[in-house]
Amino acid sequence: MSNSLRVTVWNEYLHEKVHDEVGRVYPDGIHEAIAGHLRAEGLEVRTATLEQPEHGLTDEALAWTDVLIWWGHMAHLQVSDEVVDRVCERVLNGMGLIVLHSAHMSKIFRKLMGTSGELKWREIGEKERIWVVEPGHPIAAGLGEFFEVPHAEMYGEHFDIPAPDTLVFISWFQGGEVFRSGCCYHRGRGKVFYFRPGHETYPIYYQPEVLRVITNAVRWAAPVDGPQVEFGHHPDPLEPIG
Amino acid sequence: MSNSLRVTVWNEYLHEKVHDEVGRVYPDGIHEAIAGHLRAEGLEVRTATLEQPEHGLTDEALAWTDVLIWWGHMAHLQVSDEVVDRVCERVLNGMGLIVLHSAHMSKIFRKLMGTSGELKWREIGEKERIWVVEPGHPIAAGLGEFFEVPHAEMYGEHFDIPAPDTLVFISWFQGGEVFRSGCCYHRGRGKVFYFRPGHETYPIYYQPEVLRVITNAVRWAAPVDGPQVEFGHHPDPLEPIG
Amino acid sequence: MSNSLRVTVWNEYLHEKVHDEVGRVYPDGIHEAIAGHLRAEGLEVRTATLEQPEHGLTDEALAWTDVLIWWGHMAHLQVSDEVVDRVCERVLNGMGLIVLHSAHMSKIFRKLMGTSGELKWREIGEKERIWVVEPGHPIAAGLGEFFEVPHAEMYGEHFDIPAPDTLVFISWFQGGEVFRSGCCYHRGRGKVFYFRPGHETYPIYYQPEVLRVITNAVRWAAPVDGPQVEFGHHPDPLEPIG
Amino acid sequence: MSNSLRVTVWNEYLHEKVHDEVGRVYPDGIHEAIAGHLRAEGLEVRTATLEQPEHGLTDEALAWTDVLIWWGHMAHLQVSDEVVDRVCERVLNGMGLIVLHSAHMSKIFRKLMGTSGELKWREIGEKERIWVVEPGHPIAAGLGEFFEVPHAEMYGEHFDIPAPDTLVFISWFQGGEVFRSGCCYHRGRGKVFYFRPGHETYPIYYQPEVLRVITNAVRWAAPVDGPQVEFGHHPDPLEPIG
Repeated sequence: MSNSLRVTVWNEYLHEKVHDEVGRVYPDGIHEAIAGHLRAEGLEVRTATLEQPEHGLTDEALAWTDVLIWWGHMAHLQVSDEVVDRVCERVLNGMGLIVLHSAHMSKIFRKLMGTSGELKWREIGEKERIWVVEPGHPIAAGLGEFFEVPHAEMYGEHFDIPAPDTLVFISWFQGGEVFRSGCCYHRGRGKVFYFRPGHETYPIYYQPEVLRVITNAVRWAAPVDGPQVEFGHHPDPLEPIG
Repeated sequence: MSNSLRVTVWNEYLHEKVHDEVGRVYPDGIHEAIAGHLRAEGLEVRTATLEQPEHGLTDEALAWTDVLIWWGHMAHLQVSDEVVDRVCERVLNGMGLIVLHSAHMSKIFRKLMGTSGELKWREIGEKERIWVVEPGHPIAAGLGEFFEVPHAEMYGEHFDIPAPDTLVFISWFQGGEVFRSGCCYHRGRGKVFYFRPGHETYPIYYQPEVLRVITNAVRWAAPVDGPQVEFGHHPDPLEPIG
Repeated sequence: MSNSLRVTVWNEYLHEKVHDEVGRVYPDGIHEAIAGHLRAEGLEVRTATLEQPEHGLTDEALAWTDVLIWWGHMAHLQVSDEVVDRVCERVLNGMGLIVLHSAHMSKIFRKLMGTSGELKWREIGEKERIWVVEPGHPIAAGLGEFFEVPHAEMYGEHFDIPAPDTLVFISWFQGGEVFRSGCCYHRGRGKVFYFRPGHETYPIYYQPEVLRVITNAVRWAAPVDGPQVEFGHHPDPLEPIG
Repeated sequence: MSNSLRVTVWNEYLHEKVHDEVGRVYPDGIHEAIAGHLRAEGLEVRTATLEQPEHGLTDEALAWTDVLIWWGHMAHLQVSDEVVDRVCERVLNGMGLIVLHSAHMSKIFRKLMGTSGELKWREIGEKERIWVVEPGHPIAAGLGEFFEVPHAEMYGEHFDIPAPDTLVFISWFQGGEVFRSGCCYHRGRGKVFYFRPGHETYPIYYQPEVLRVITNAVRWAAPVDGPQVEFGHHPDPLEPIG
């Protein structure tokens, strides 16, 4: 009810319409694959896409949202700076943000990290094995020691991010690389989780482990009823100055 | 029900019986002051004390426990190494541990930290102001930007602990010191939270903010259904070796 | 010689010219107070200021610089975005950056942190006591357990920064606040250190402990001969794919 | 001279005498392979071994030592608790400690970490590729983006350690595992670095990259002239209490 988490799944939603092979994998878009799972988990879910006015991320939409999930790839630069600033402001004020796969190059992720977000990549459908390195973290709930993505785009180090507050996953790739695949950050009053898996040409967002991690991450990133923070001039000391 | 968290509050329980002024503040012991609050919050709570056989921390008692709260002060060395090893093993296998105030010198805290746990202290009843420095952390839920303990024993830096995975609180003391007062750690599959307030001669464990933090910390430290971890010899590679 | 560290001290350099009381404290500007000390320590030092072309931070100037020290206060918004982007790029490629006092609101610090950089402040000349909380860190070399600034502008939590990779100092203020005053970060191939002390109306940059910390921080933040990092498409796997 | 770092290389020194194939690789022991390199780098180096009185780690020997390097494998339990406590005390008081390979199960490492130090292992001579993930860290100086060990014992996650203060290396293994291979910790006034490579049956301690990392780590772990820390009762407040 009013108690339930409210999630907005944002998707660029271009690949699915432009490339037949992507459309076959995600006929209603990546956002609907993820949203459908989260609804089945009992969360309140909306979606938003690039081509909507204000990319579907109006003040009202963000005010409603507890946790925002972000997928983008080919059109990062088409996202307006104004909307990025608005999302950033909401994260610093408590909204959770889950950044998926190629969104490592999204404006919002780079802005919140302060780094380039760049990495190495290769697309030959190799195997990825994702290892849990912090087994007591709630984002690892329900998993085994590792899970595999049979065919994945490779992302390799160096990944230009700040060292995560908590590193939950490390990926092994068949072609010889490793990658920090599950990265937790506090930013302001909000929380950010970067999760690597999810290329648009593979059915990764139907894989139970991947969906489980996303669900876990939404719960971890949910706002808490923490202190309202006041900045600026506080002319009166709390203690008497002799 | 079966869904509820199971908490054991461990108390040395000597000060209350030996010193009248402590007995007046905590007539049923510090453990009952904390346990009573947690029960009112809907948790299942047991208590255990030093003078019980095996200090009340048998294999069965620990197997039952999701989160263990630890208060001790004058009798750290009377806690048997065998029980300390047993608690340590349970933490590494997922049990949460909340370490309160003077338990910074408990065997179990020092063992899990690998450092001496030492600090500066002074007992003149001065004021403490506890500031939230990670306002999006669940342990800060329900708090304002700070709360005050009107009369406290001072603990001052340097506090000989590993840098916390997450630092949630910093204390200001009237006499001129600061202290890292709320410190989160992952250890194995378990989680540890050190929380400073709570001297036996002051009614600090009746203070709403202190009880709120303890309740928050119990929920944060609760075990998650993460991977069972296997160590040791794994002779067969997961991938073919050419 | 060629082995020596090359430091550029950047100062907005407005207060000193506009306000007589600042000019009396720093007749040649804050930058020269700091630069003079670093030269005496054997470093190669240049200075640069806001009103120079490109704020004195041309490509050539930055290429020369191992570590950049940044002081600004009243004119953050007059720093051009182009220069900020250039400095940011250099940090990600290895240049060290020392951010002093009111530069917590500088464009470059906020960009590299991804947060607002905001905090509480008060200017009544109260006492600050800066405690070392990581005594084995090279930035704490030569200090005692704490040092005092007799009259300081107060900066109080919450300070809207990412949790530092290493927290070296915490400040106590007479008026009742605390502050994370020495914060280390890795960003890309570079390192960033935020150091709180240094208001323009107090002779803080002549204080031996403050100068010692700045010198230590320059050495800590110096570039290392680490790997050149390559990003982007790496079509050929390092290992054969079956 | 007196300015030079003083390093003690400690080796269990049993494999080399018991197993011919190890003796052929390290005819003077692993300690001499490492010590020889460090001497060539201009450091003052001593060695110590298990079978010496007090394992060669007397009070005098430890007082002399700036950084201690530790290699052990088959005889961890033969190291006396008294010597372990002495080494631990010295680390907390500023001595650096470099823990190599199978010493993840040494008493001293487990004591300083507070965790079991356990991991997965396999010995089939597979390839290891060690990736730098913090390219601005001094321990990565002189390296490329990765280096390879052609034949290695595999160590795999989950590695039961506290999350490092700084994670410098992640290993990829041919058989499908990953591992946190270069882990920095502050403990008390001292610093600890765990470095994975180095099995006794392979000539890994002659490999230039491995020796470079060990040399870098020694310099990083060297004591700094930081504050002497005082613990215990400080009855007099630094500030007047009203």
